[in-house]
Amino acid sequence: MVGPEIDRLMQLLGRLPGLGPRSARRAALALIKKREGLLLPLAEALTAVAESVRTCAVCGNYDTQDPCAVCRDERRDKSLICVVQDVSDLWALERTSAFRGRYQVLGGLLSALEGVAPEDLAIDKLVARVRDDAVTEVILALPATVDGQTTAHYIADALEAEGVTVSGLAQGVPVGGELDYLDDGTLLAALNARRPV
Amino acid sequence: MVGPEIDRLMQLLGRLPGLGPRSARRAALALIKKREGLLLPLAEALTAVAESVRTCAVCGNYDTQDPCAVCRDERRDKSLICVVQDVSDLWALERTSAFRGRYQVLGGLLSALEGVAPEDLAIDKLVARVRDDAVTEVILALPATVDGQTTAHYIADALEAEGVTVSGLAQGVPVGGELDYLDDGTLLAALNARRPV
Repeated sequence: MVGPEIDRLMQLLGRLPGLGPRSARRAALALIKKREGLLLPLAEALTAVAESVRTCAVCGNYDTQDPCAVCRDERRDKSLICVVQDVSDLWALERTSAFRGRYQVLGGLLSALEGVAPEDLAIDKLVARVRDDAVTEVILALPATVDGQTTAHYIADALEAEGVTVSGLAQGVPVGGELDYLDDGTLLAALNARRPV
Repeated sequence: MVGPEIDRLMQLLGRLPGLGPRSARRAALALIKKREGLLLPLAEALTAVAESVRTCAVCGNYDTQDPCAVCRDERRDKSLICVVQDVSDLWALERTSAFRGRYQVLGGLLSALEGVAPEDLAIDKLVARVRDDAVTEVILALPATVDGQTTAHYIADALEAEGVTVSGLAQGVPVGGELDYLDDGTLLAALNARRPV
């Protein structure tokens, strides 16, 4: 029905997260309709990213320079490292503008089920950085899942001999969260970690 | 936070239908992670489409050849034209494999509100094709909206002198549709167009 070029474009678009076959078709049509305004600029942007984006050798972030903008920023506190599972989590924390230290991207979580062992993650690198950069605190910003908490405990153990403070994100009621809609685990955690008003 | 190349990629992805800022960010990260498997192939596919896709001079379809595959297919009935609003509708009808005639893409619908006049649509072209190709039936596969039906009536009037049968899609209960969830208009139309079982 359509030429092989359009077909291939629809298939590739359908492999992006959040796009199914139907929305990939709509996206392909929108691109064909906006040839000058969207299709060609997107092709150029993809090529530019492919040519320029590197993984930061220090923390594992993606940027056009290596070390990345976060690691190069001299105003940032070198003695503070925030450990995240993935680059998307690093970007999410950067959007809050609240953290002024540096990061370490793990590249995953320990998982017996998926066969992810400590040596598959950047844990040795984290320990080496803690040692070399005189780090005083490591914040574990890992997901509140079984794998996330297993990984957090493993890292805390690995850092025990380094004399560094290891902390985790607070658990509790999310901003704007209605108690009625929260799961029991979150409510229990929020109750246990209650604070004076 | 991220390099200008990544930022631009996220902005362009966010202009695709179905992708908001959040999913554009996820898509950009997925592309960076799968550089060889997804990013480079997508850049190539976009360039290939930009270079090869044409608008069919006969019917208005998109294809890598002009006339398009539908118009070139000699097994198709030239005396039957199906009028659609957009290329996406043509593709939707082609997926059913039920229509063996040819198409005319209008490129929109008449709309006083949006200032779309008959000369902005391919109506003159349709009338000329009906005359030149000895067309016997024109099927108006236009949306069941006010603009769609206004356009259908306008086209029926324009074709009145040509002695061609003009038909529209049947209205009724969609396949798998529960009566309880249907709007009153659809139920009324289905009732009025009832058929012997």
